[in-house]
Amino acid sequence: MKPSIPKGTRDFLPEEVYKRRYIFETIQSVFELHGFLPIETPVMENLSTLTGKYGDEGDKLLFKILNNGDFLARADEEALGERDSNKLIPSISKRGLRYDLTVPFARYVVMHRNDLQFPFKRYQIQPVWRADRPQKGRYQEFYQCDADVVGSTSLSQEAAYIEMIDEVFTKLGLEVEIIINNRKLLAGIAELAGVSDRMIEMTVAIDKLDKIGWEKVREEMRGRGFEDHQIDRIQEVLSDSSLEHLGSQLAGSTTGSQGIAELKTILDYVNPDSLTQTLKIDPNLARGLNYYTGCIFEVKSKEVQMGSILGGGRYDNLTEVFGLKDVSGVGISFGVERIYDILAELDRFPAHVDGKVRLLAVAMDPESHLHAFQLVRSLRSEGVSADLYPDPVKMKKQMKYADSMDVSHVLIVGSAEVASKEYSLKNMKTGEQWQLPLEDLIAKFKSI
Amino acid sequence: MKPSIPKGTRDFLPEEVYKRRYIFETIQSVFELHGFLPIETPVMENLSTLTGKYGDEGDKLLFKILNNGDFLARADEEALGERDSNKLIPSISKRGLRYDLTVPFARYVVMHRNDLQFPFKRYQIQPVWRADRPQKGRYQEFYQCDADVVGSTSLSQEAAYIEMIDEVFTKLGLEVEIIINNRKLLAGIAELAGVSDRMIEMTVAIDKLDKIGWEKVREEMRGRGFEDHQIDRIQEVLSDSSLEHLGSQLAGSTTGSQGIAELKTILDYVNPDSLTQTLKIDPNLARGLNYYTGCIFEVKSKEVQMGSILGGGRYDNLTEVFGLKDVSGVGISFGVERIYDILAELDRFPAHVDGKVRLLAVAMDPESHLHAFQLVRSLRSEGVSADLYPDPVKMKKQMKYADSMDVSHVLIVGSAEVASKEYSLKNMKTGEQWQLPLEDLIAKFKSI
Repeated sequence: MKPSIPKGTRDFLPEEVYKRRYIFETIQSVFELHGFLPIETPVMENLSTLTGKYGDEGDKLLFKILNNGDFLARADEEALGERDSNKLIPSISKRGLRYDLTVPFARYVVMHRNDLQFPFKRYQIQPVWRADRPQKGRYQEFYQCDADVVGSTSLSQEAAYIEMIDEVFTKLGLEVEIIINNRKLLAGIAELAGVSDRMIEMTVAIDKLDKIGWEKVREEMRGRGFEDHQIDRIQEVLSDSSLEHLGSQLAGSTTGSQGIAELKTILDYVNPDSLTQTLKIDPNLARGLNYYTGCIFEVKSKEVQMGSILGGGRYDNLTEVFGLKDVSGVGISFGVERIYDILAELDRFPAHVDGKVRLLAVAMDPESHLHAFQLVRSLRSEGVSADLYPDPVKMKKQMKYADSMDVSHVLIVGSAEVASKEYSLKNMKTGEQWQLPLEDLIAKFKSI
Repeated sequence: MKPSIPKGTRDFLPEEVYKRRYIFETIQSVFELHGFLPIETPVMENLSTLTGKYGDEGDKLLFKILNNGDFLARADEEALGERDSNKLIPSISKRGLRYDLTVPFARYVVMHRNDLQFPFKRYQIQPVWRADRPQKGRYQEFYQCDADVVGSTSLSQEAAYIEMIDEVFTKLGLEVEIIINNRKLLAGIAELAGVSDRMIEMTVAIDKLDKIGWEKVREEMRGRGFEDHQIDRIQEVLSDSSLEHLGSQLAGSTTGSQGIAELKTILDYVNPDSLTQTLKIDPNLARGLNYYTGCIFEVKSKEVQMGSILGGGRYDNLTEVFGLKDVSGVGISFGVERIYDILAELDRFPAHVDGKVRLLAVAMDPESHLHAFQLVRSLRSEGVSADLYPDPVKMKKQMKYADSMDVSHVLIVGSAEVASKEYSLKNMKTGEQWQLPLEDLIAKFKSI
């Protein structure tokens, strides 16, 4: 049989693992600097935890795990008779694969609330699964990288997130735009325009302003039945995105004014000039997820045309669906798969992330091989990542392996070296060669 | 609804994540020192890759993923009619969860053989899933931690593994016994006793010698139909486990002699006296998996009564089932879940693994809070892991939080501190207190 892996999944070669690890560890180090703590949840969750949390479309995209054993014995006979797949599922599948990290986190907070200190700041870097149609850059198994604070309504959290986002992308050597908005501001605009009951439709339309411009947005809104005077009012408010203009426009809306006040408080904490990246308030920013209730975040690359590479915001009721009310939180999620693609496209991965094998010892004969084995052990015990070619075969073959493994140095051990206890070390990049005793070898590698 | 997680799965609190990470990173650092490279494979594999690789029992324990969409439309009508769950599976499930890391690795080697350099040394630390009945210490979702070399028959690999195992457990601060044997030696014994066709049964029986002694092993073997003279011969060979005795006993068996010679070669490379842990050759050691063909490894704790905490060995035909012949390999797998339990029982986790939040800033009023926010930013930019209590609430509440979060230091910021730019730092363990300007604060934390 010719082996394969499921579509939408990936194997990672060592070089890719190192590059992915570089991204995860960079983000993780900033999370920890900011006092976020790591948690992990199981890959398998009860379907009762997952179902109904992501809308009908999401329910379809959940991977369900077949019950073990004689699952048909407890199958819904009616559903079987009707050949109704959807109806059959609950009776033959109790578990599913994690679809995101947010719902499992909400479940976690509720289950462990007595073991946690609030505010609880957690981060989580784990894979999730979605049965989306696979395409370039979209996978069925991919990583998410989330940080959330729950149990605090302080706007200093939003400010700290902006700084954290700034630090991560700066550390990664990328230029980005950090875009923020506030859902309350959007609600205020809807209120002023008399379309409070259609706020979602409104935000979906104006979210496209950057891409398609007012002409097309107006067209779309008209198509959805918005009236001209309503659209005019919305356009008037959005004609200038300064907080002064928005503040005076929204003065008549309590909610809208609160949104402005919140943005101002955040800017009291974080000084945009102290950031390395660009911070932009964009009243058009909507973000798809409707559970956000306050500040919302988005990040876009300034160097590569790609969608959002970070999203997040404040929500009021993360855990309510699991029976715990009034847990306000604010969180962000890094689009690590896209960040990988950007770093790859811009060739910005640091040189040292690829592999760590530094030295390969090669031996000329069986006796030298035994000797080289001891040498390599001594080098390792001093922290030098070293390897020994497994057999004393022809030098040409061993050197070819060293080349293809891209090792930085080769240590050559033959009977002359065993006798003199001075070994030939070759720098594979420069071609330089030295004759060194063990202690000088160790010193040399420690200084690299 | 009251949330729960599937039986046999676990949530990990921050403290547990840190402890688990400590184990993984310790092992990983030794793997990398020895030139092993990381790979990752998907959680979901095609069932065609997994099925039939773990025996009938294993097939039952595989978690299968229901096909998405209208899976009943393509269901095997005959199996449905007969309500035959097993027969139905192939038509409604194409994918399963990874059951171990070995079969996916074999698949990986075959699929990527043109991108890999041989010998290929890979390590892999990822979770696996088995629908075993959950019980204390046995989970349905758990981590494996494997290192394998494929494409080399050199016995220096076996020797390097022994050193690597020695280094890992020494780094973890545990006392263990590293037990080795060779399948060829077992085959030689079976040959001498005239029971070559029943070698597995013989090894299963003698593997229990340590636990139940010769009396009971003889009884069991008689029960299985071994004849007395056969058992006598086996007992004679095993009466002394020195290589001298075994060598002379097995002189009449080519395979047995080869097993002895291999063990001797391994000892030419690795000097038992240079190891920190105990190395023991045990001709009774069998290991369950029958695909081992040469040297086999096992590790047991000398401090805690528990089963094997590492297993491994040499195999000749890892990839044959996927169409690639003659790929010899040798690998080991750390029982990381058990190692965790041992470290916990012996209280051997280093103190620093629990959390890294060092400093919590607390502010007395809104203005001080804004000021403290800037202070914390300055500390973080110098690499100090710092956090700010989100609101300037009552000092008592903030200090209680600091206590429960087990932070090492609290930085107190009030209007006096804002004015003087000297801040009160309190060591939460010793109660000591200082008044320090920012630069001294930074210097203090850098020296800790």
